[in-house]
Amino acid sequence: MDATTRIEKALDAALERAEVPECPPKLAAAIRYAVQPGGARIRPRLCLAVAAACGDDHPALTDAAASAIEILHCASLVHDDLPCFDDAELRRGKPSVHKAFGEAQAVLVGDALIVMAFETLARGAALVPQRLPGLVMTIARSTGAPTGIIAGQAWESEPNIHLSNYHKAKTGSLFAAATISGALAAGADPDRWRLLGERLGEAYQVADDIHDLMSNAEDIGKPSGQDAIHNRPSATAELGFGGAVDRLQLLLSEAVQSIPQCPGAQELRGIIIAASKAFVPKGIAQRAA
Amino acid sequence: MDATTRIEKALDAALERAEVPECPPKLAAAIRYAVQPGGARIRPRLCLAVAAACGDDHPALTDAAASAIEILHCASLVHDDLPCFDDAELRRGKPSVHKAFGEAQAVLVGDALIVMAFETLARGAALVPQRLPGLVMTIARSTGAPTGIIAGQAWESEPNIHLSNYHKAKTGSLFAAATISGALAAGADPDRWRLLGERLGEAYQVADDIHDLMSNAEDIGKPSGQDAIHNRPSATAELGFGGAVDRLQLLLSEAVQSIPQCPGAQELRGIIIAASKAFVPKGIAQRAA
Repeated sequence: MDATTRIEKALDAALERAEVPECPPKLAAAIRYAVQPGGARIRPRLCLAVAAACGDDHPALTDAAASAIEILHCASLVHDDLPCFDDAELRRGKPSVHKAFGEAQAVLVGDALIVMAFETLARGAALVPQRLPGLVMTIARSTGAPTGIIAGQAWESEPNIHLSNYHKAKTGSLFAAATISGALAAGADPDRWRLLGERLGEAYQVADDIHDLMSNAEDIGKPSGQDAIHNRPSATAELGFGGAVDRLQLLLSEAVQSIPQCPGAQELRGIIIAASKAFVPKGIAQRAA
Repeated sequence: MDATTRIEKALDAALERAEVPECPPKLAAAIRYAVQPGGARIRPRLCLAVAAACGDDHPALTDAAASAIEILHCASLVHDDLPCFDDAELRRGKPSVHKAFGEAQAVLVGDALIVMAFETLARGAALVPQRLPGLVMTIARSTGAPTGIIAGQAWESEPNIHLSNYHKAKTGSLFAAATISGALAAGADPDRWRLLGERLGEAYQVADDIHDLMSNAEDIGKPSGQDAIHNRPSATAELGFGGAVDRLQLLLSEAVQSIPQCPGAQELRGIIIAASKAFVPKGIAQRAA
């Protein structure tokens, strides 16, 4: 089964567990709306690719970890779009969850997705429970306080921010969770895979900052120039456009170099180069490749 | 160690993990504010009492389960108080989290607490990982969609609500998680303990509805008459005052009768009768006892 099929099947199974008569119908509909159709599914792809490089001896657990990470990513998008944060009207080319279902549902959808992620993970670990504590702790650390994506979002409310720490938490942490969880799900040593996730995560955030500056709403399915509007720290504001492009190239190169020696390393390198091309803004892709 | 000490110590350890220089300081402060000082800690007490009745062979896991459930309860209070739900100014006699720290922090505090609950659980299961999948699934089911406290809150946005289903999800589910998790943490059969949690949970909700009608803000530390203001379904609105009191008595009696035969059953009965007296509104306590 290819990565896309595995990821969408696992996500669908998680969503279907909420779609029963006992669930408030609006909530069930809003949860699915937040998850499908999705974006590039970069994080779960990365998780699957690392697990494959490590042998992937329990594919059900890998699928659970990959989909849990994507579900948490979707949760963060729903809450980040809320009026008290970005007040975004569009997400992935359609109205944001709070615009489509109201603010109360959007808060609950994000909450329910966080819970769903951990439930999905636990279900996938039924046959290999000894791998569950490490997976839950890794994914929780990458999501909550003190250094996960929630902490990253909270940094935006602080008077003094260190750009790299902010990016590490807001984006890098869930990418690191993707690589580390891929290894943990396959029973491999996770520490060798942390750097790959961190570098790719920071690269993705720098690419997003460049995107934000360059693009217009039609191109990326959400309003642009948001960093400047919300006075958010960004790589382009700190380093300038050229400096940000240089940083992006350096991070991608460090990411590829960090891949440890393992049977599937060459294939993984190819997957990562292809995936990173998808998030490098058009027009500078050639320079960054 | 007595129950209060165990619970507060476990909660404190979870909070301290967020209180490091890497965490945005406002977020760390707001997280602690949401958890301490707490309310009656009824759910974790119930969890500890059931675990004790089942032998409590891994107290660290019991403490983790009890504190995870209390952390999720605190998360639900922070989000339920938000302007898009109850818009409550007070909670436990002090300004609600969004009044004290702003709406953005309140959303993030709730999110971070949900994640913290599962991280706490996983840490407590390091030595008995085979008990973790069941615990995560039980606590997730009682929290998220389709039938947990988040679904309970979502029912308030639906045009047609079944009062008992709504109460089961909004309050009963986390009480059921408390009893079932107490058994699971001690390696005992959890199914024998479900009814106790469900009946106590519904009793607590009916008592809260009676409270809401009877009390004023000074007595319960939050504004009263909220059910009527928000046009929420309530036991007093559906059954009348006398009917609600009768229902409360029936539920408490069924709860105590449901306690399975086990070494600590008598002691547990005493704990539950004492705990239920704490949430029965003054003035009808004598009639309900």
